[in-house]
Amino acid sequence: MIVVPAERLLKLGKDIFKAQGLANEKAEFLAETLVEGSLTGHDSHGVSYFVIYSERIKGGHIKVDAEPVIVHETPTTAYIDGKYAPGQITAKKLTEVAVAKAKEHMVSAVGAFNCNHIGRIGYYTNWAAKQGVIALFFANVGNPQVAVHGGEGRTFGTNPISVGIPTGDAKPFLTDYATSVVAAGKISVAMAKHAKIPLHWTRDKHGKPTDDPFAFKDGGWLLPFGEYKGYALQLVSEMLGAVLTGSRRGMDPDQIPPSTNGIFMIAVDPSAFVGLETFREGVDDVISRVKEGKTEPGKRIMIPGEPEWETKDARLAEGIPIPEETWNKIVKFADELGLKIEDY
Amino acid sequence: MIVVPAERLLKLGKDIFKAQGLANEKAEFLAETLVEGSLTGHDSHGVSYFVIYSERIKGGHIKVDAEPVIVHETPTTAYIDGKYAPGQITAKKLTEVAVAKAKEHMVSAVGAFNCNHIGRIGYYTNWAAKQGVIALFFANVGNPQVAVHGGEGRTFGTNPISVGIPTGDAKPFLTDYATSVVAAGKISVAMAKHAKIPLHWTRDKHGKPTDDPFAFKDGGWLLPFGEYKGYALQLVSEMLGAVLTGSRRGMDPDQIPPSTNGIFMIAVDPSAFVGLETFREGVDDVISRVKEGKTEPGKRIMIPGEPEWETKDARLAEGIPIPEETWNKIVKFADELGLKIEDY
Repeated sequence: MIVVPAERLLKLGKDIFKAQGLANEKAEFLAETLVEGSLTGHDSHGVSYFVIYSERIKGGHIKVDAEPVIVHETPTTAYIDGKYAPGQITAKKLTEVAVAKAKEHMVSAVGAFNCNHIGRIGYYTNWAAKQGVIALFFANVGNPQVAVHGGEGRTFGTNPISVGIPTGDAKPFLTDYATSVVAAGKISVAMAKHAKIPLHWTRDKHGKPTDDPFAFKDGGWLLPFGEYKGYALQLVSEMLGAVLTGSRRGMDPDQIPPSTNGIFMIAVDPSAFVGLETFREGVDDVISRVKEGKTEPGKRIMIPGEPEWETKDARLAEGIPIPEETWNKIVKFADELGLKIEDY
Repeated sequence: MIVVPAERLLKLGKDIFKAQGLANEKAEFLAETLVEGSLTGHDSHGVSYFVIYSERIKGGHIKVDAEPVIVHETPTTAYIDGKYAPGQITAKKLTEVAVAKAKEHMVSAVGAFNCNHIGRIGYYTNWAAKQGVIALFFANVGNPQVAVHGGEGRTFGTNPISVGIPTGDAKPFLTDYATSVVAAGKISVAMAKHAKIPLHWTRDKHGKPTDDPFAFKDGGWLLPFGEYKGYALQLVSEMLGAVLTGSRRGMDPDQIPPSTNGIFMIAVDPSAFVGLETFREGVDDVISRVKEGKTEPGKRIMIPGEPEWETKDARLAEGIPIPEETWNKIVKFADELGLKIEDY
């Protein structure tokens, strides 16, 4: 592992994207969301995308100067054509519009299609919650890796869902996870370490349980979490993220460009109900009473979002650990762009 | 088991509630939702409530002539005081208002407090989906039975969530489940049969895994489904169902009246996005492609809602099986009200 300060990665990421034609602000935002992914411990949605996105830019899949546009709008909704701009730019617009409309009309729903990979969806719900609205986010992933419950083979992407809820401090309550037992990134981590994986994470290409992470890459598949209950949410994310927005479905055969997201956000202003301040106090009260509860021996009670905040605090202080291979790829790619790593 | 035709239960249920002072239409609706619970296989939310609700009416907890009222309203939202009317009456109003507002303004959010037990939440999302809107429902249950992930003891109710999505036929896509591994009703079923239960359903009062369903009743607790992911949803249901609506929280000490629900629905009209007909076609397409997929040996691929529709078709044809003890209680109670069972 190489340990790199977040500040350095922010500058480097921005310049990598600028060197490929992104406007300053957009390059900065892309770098910020990816560094935030790494800071919060979601390394599968972190700085390794400096290079992956760049390959997609080179392939013409991410259009650096495209601007997402609203194709249909009402006071409470917006329907966005992402125009294959960087996915983060589309998701930012979606979130800003959803929050603004919810603040004006109490509730809103915004969806987007032609949208590239947006990074970690919790970034957007977290931002919305900090603005004082409740945000629900459903994304489909146009890159099938997960079987359906009772089925075999790769049918859907990891179809994440996220809910951000305002609290009394700057750290929202935040759920943010794949509807598979684990995200594919965790399999990659196990492969890198040559570690075994739990039997309920994947099946091999013959449908057999396996503790070998390489069996997933070799034609295996991930399983939905929580049996039929997680499977139901996997499908909800597909229906809202892909079908409602007119985005590519997980099982569609034409997987170009790679790994698109169909994205859908609902935002609710608590002012329509108990009011924002009472809501914040109530959320804090529930959180503190949950945390005061009796723990199982050897366990901790964590609130959704808390593991991310803890990791972020630690990595802001100590730097972000990056696998040597990932770091070398970033450095090599920066060099090809004419950026000298010693300047960062 | 006694097998009783749905028609007979509908008439009997209506008269049981009418005999206690409910207006004809309200009595009919209560009976309908409970018989529908039994028809769809959700026996834990079925006709056994003919008697349970009646006890709550007798205790003054369910107010037969109360009318839920909207205390705060905007074009897209409504905030309802249920006035401790029968919970079904409050949930019906919430659903009707949410659907009407979504149809007029594309998206809506409606919440209610002072709400008694509403029965199976899928009843309402199913109804909304049939009207052509997408409905998301979050309910807290003011009757703690479930531990938090990593914790011990009863902290929250079974806090169900449901999503109803329109399809091309009269059978919506419908998720509808407790955020615990199983609903408490399944433990009761195992107790009635003196059957063992899987180890991941509950803990006994000492926090130990157990296959004995009676250990749950004797101070044990249910576990959230899907480890930290289901736990996160359990909390989301609490934050939206209870905190946002100002309802009693699961862990509140004052558990009077018994088993309230804090309820919250979001409704979205697909017209704001791809349009209702395209959406229906897309949902049907995903469903049929999922069902055509390869199955695990000995398994079936089911779509959320399908088990309920299959059970309903069978029970409409063959009658509803009711445990003898439950049936005897209903008959005895009807008799006390002056209703002769042979008239039904």
